[in-house]
Amino acid sequence: MAEGERAEELLDLIDSNDLTGIRLWLAEHRPYEIADELSRMDEGHAIIPFRLLDKDRELEVFEELDPSQQQGILLGLRDHAFHDILEQMDPDDRARLIGEAPAKIATRALAGLSPSERRMTAALLGYPENSVGRYMTPETVILHRDLTVGRALEVVRARGADAENIYTLPVVSDGRRMVGTVALGDLVISDDNRLLKDVVDVFAPRVRASEDVESAARLMQEANLVALSVVDSEERFVGMLTFDDALEVIEAADSEDMARQSGASPVGDHYVSVGVFRLVGARAVWLVVLLVAATLTVNVMQAYEATLEEVTALALFVPMLIGTGGNVGAQSATAIVRALAVGEVRVRDLPQVLWKECRVGFMLGLTLAALALGIGSLLVGTLIALVVACTVIAICTWAAIIGSAMPLLANKVGVDPAVVSSPMVATLVDATGLIIYFSIARMILGI
Amino acid sequence: MAEGERAEELLDLIDSNDLTGIRLWLAEHRPYEIADELSRMDEGHAIIPFRLLDKDRELEVFEELDPSQQQGILLGLRDHAFHDILEQMDPDDRARLIGEAPAKIATRALAGLSPSERRMTAALLGYPENSVGRYMTPETVILHRDLTVGRALEVVRARGADAENIYTLPVVSDGRRMVGTVALGDLVISDDNRLLKDVVDVFAPRVRASEDVESAARLMQEANLVALSVVDSEERFVGMLTFDDALEVIEAADSEDMARQSGASPVGDHYVSVGVFRLVGARAVWLVVLLVAATLTVNVMQAYEATLEEVTALALFVPMLIGTGGNVGAQSATAIVRALAVGEVRVRDLPQVLWKECRVGFMLGLTLAALALGIGSLLVGTLIALVVACTVIAICTWAAIIGSAMPLLANKVGVDPAVVSSPMVATLVDATGLIIYFSIARMILGI
Repeated sequence: MAEGERAEELLDLIDSNDLTGIRLWLAEHRPYEIADELSRMDEGHAIIPFRLLDKDRELEVFEELDPSQQQGILLGLRDHAFHDILEQMDPDDRARLIGEAPAKIATRALAGLSPSERRMTAALLGYPENSVGRYMTPETVILHRDLTVGRALEVVRARGADAENIYTLPVVSDGRRMVGTVALGDLVISDDNRLLKDVVDVFAPRVRASEDVESAARLMQEANLVALSVVDSEERFVGMLTFDDALEVIEAADSEDMARQSGASPVGDHYVSVGVFRLVGARAVWLVVLLVAATLTVNVMQAYEATLEEVTALALFVPMLIGTGGNVGAQSATAIVRALAVGEVRVRDLPQVLWKECRVGFMLGLTLAALALGIGSLLVGTLIALVVACTVIAICTWAAIIGSAMPLLANKVGVDPAVVSSPMVATLVDATGLIIYFSIARMILGI
Repeated sequence: MAEGERAEELLDLIDSNDLTGIRLWLAEHRPYEIADELSRMDEGHAIIPFRLLDKDRELEVFEELDPSQQQGILLGLRDHAFHDILEQMDPDDRARLIGEAPAKIATRALAGLSPSERRMTAALLGYPENSVGRYMTPETVILHRDLTVGRALEVVRARGADAENIYTLPVVSDGRRMVGTVALGDLVISDDNRLLKDVVDVFAPRVRASEDVESAARLMQEANLVALSVVDSEERFVGMLTFDDALEVIEAADSEDMARQSGASPVGDHYVSVGVFRLVGARAVWLVVLLVAATLTVNVMQAYEATLEEVTALALFVPMLIGTGGNVGAQSATAIVRALAVGEVRVRDLPQVLWKECRVGFMLGLTLAALALGIGSLLVGTLIALVVACTVIAICTWAAIIGSAMPLLANKVGVDPAVVSSPMVATLVDATGLIIYFSIARMILGI
């Protein structure tokens, strides 16, 4: 099954309106593979194979799609199929879909739900976006601490079929107050007569529904949890955050950080299905800001225009010098942004981080300066090469300091450190680096 | 429990040699929290609280540390404790630790293992680095397809306590040949008299032990799997890849991609515990390559020195123009590298991607050119501003093409696309961008 052939095949089948062929193709692929193919098409194409799926796979495929693709599919469905899918979705996935949908779809969706599902969805929608509450599942089997293991297993047998996740089960006392969790595996291997309160892990971490979902997901990863209990402000159990949602949250957060680091707004959706105008929109804002900021470099160059006219050779090294400064700054910024994201560095580490990056930048500067001295001597003579080499040392040290300080300061004032993008650091280093360059030139050349 | 206070406290306790205080601190924290603190210290400090941990928590904390930290801790332990820990570790974690350790530690470690554990470790070490085989756990409960559900549960009860993961259980036919998997939850809620072969999910994905572990981890994420079956070349079951290892692999892969995107080699360990020299080493190589490549810009500037001497004002816009080109290129490169990593774009999408990025680059160029025309007219007059504006359009389009084509081409020839870092794209765009700039200048200014 060569990857390359798969997609063309399905698209070809759709374009030639070969319904039998599409049905065969669908039967041969797994739900996540089908979803992956549909993600690459526009909605007009995707709806055709989707309509041909049998009922139980329809839901599985649907749940694997991004919210914006789900909206597109929903709009192509008849009322009956539309409501069927929404009614059967996992409550957390449904809440996120409705939360992101335009009002027209959201209203139609909520109106068609059964009262109990509507209540559950409304409760989840009550939590802020990007909070744990939006991602948790309220559908699980809750066990009371006074049960025996044998009785608890009976409860799981009776109610487990409707639950989204029964790997880790919440154990509560009266009034749903959280006691801890027990792994289904531990229930199965424990003696039936033991009491749940002797088996429960009371140290299992828990989070509030209002907390940020990314930190909760990273906690799950650190603590190797397949599910994390979620409580309200009074320590009452309200739901479980499961590993599949945690994985999705971490992937999305990493994608966002990467986009931000390159000076673009995160797009969120599948690259292939995003239109040109949305891509332009996501990238233009920062480019405009950076271009305006780069006007500073024009001003600096103007300020030293006399120097430039006297020694035109100085202009030759401008691209190389500011490029190097930008590169060193980008390395430092990226390292610190990532260390902050995964929790390796905290804001209070600022002094140590600055001192470390300052030494790293200086040593990188020394290495590059030796090289620049060689290149410069060959191309334009020793004196200007000396200016270039000294500038490299100063710019590298300076860039490493700026690159590491800015994300930490952003974090301190409550801004996502990833918005301190590499281009932003580079632009800042450009303007200041030019001042350093011309100052050193004037000193050494005596002009 | 303010995060900030925690670490200072433990470090203070260690520095003041307050053993009772350390014991108290340890009792109040969870294993992953303890591991997190130890990661921030050098080995001389970390070994002190580690020695004070009680036996069962010792192992839990140890397994949460990075391999290089584990080595440091091991070297500080007496023979008895050293072998105790290794004997009890999960086989996959142990294999990775031994695989990365210097020969001295590795030999000592293998020599002390019991025959059965040694055999298991040797088998895992037989798989290539970064393959699924190194990350899978062979310790699981294997079920034969002819069992009833009730009998299968008895097997789980009898043997489940030793297994690392029993959420998803492999079902095999004679000769360990893989049939499919069954979730423990489904076993629990199914009728005891049903046959396993009627409950097993035969469509559950499986991977070869020799395959790349990152793709396997991303497959688990796409298909929402808590564990993935691993088979050998003859479809015999050999182990399970579990979600916690998958999460770790994805996080590490994302960290590596981010480092590479900024033109640095990935360091792997905790930022705080990595020394200055290792950071310099990880960053210097690409900086040197880029500096040498940037010599091209010096050559280009030299080639147009006469033009520069005639119209010095042209030099003023050099930093701004090459900065803008680098920014656009970095955005495209980052978007494509990420889309490739998560599987949204494949190599055969090259023509569509290029066409899309080309349009995006052109539109971004139009937007920025309007701005540049305004800024340029204010600062130096309309004619040069016109040169700058035309250059912005050309450079943006060109940068978007280069930035998107390079990662795809790298992937095509089997190189990690993340190596096509933003600085690399920027450096390439710098040199070519200058040629575009001066050509347009000569044309419009008639020199």
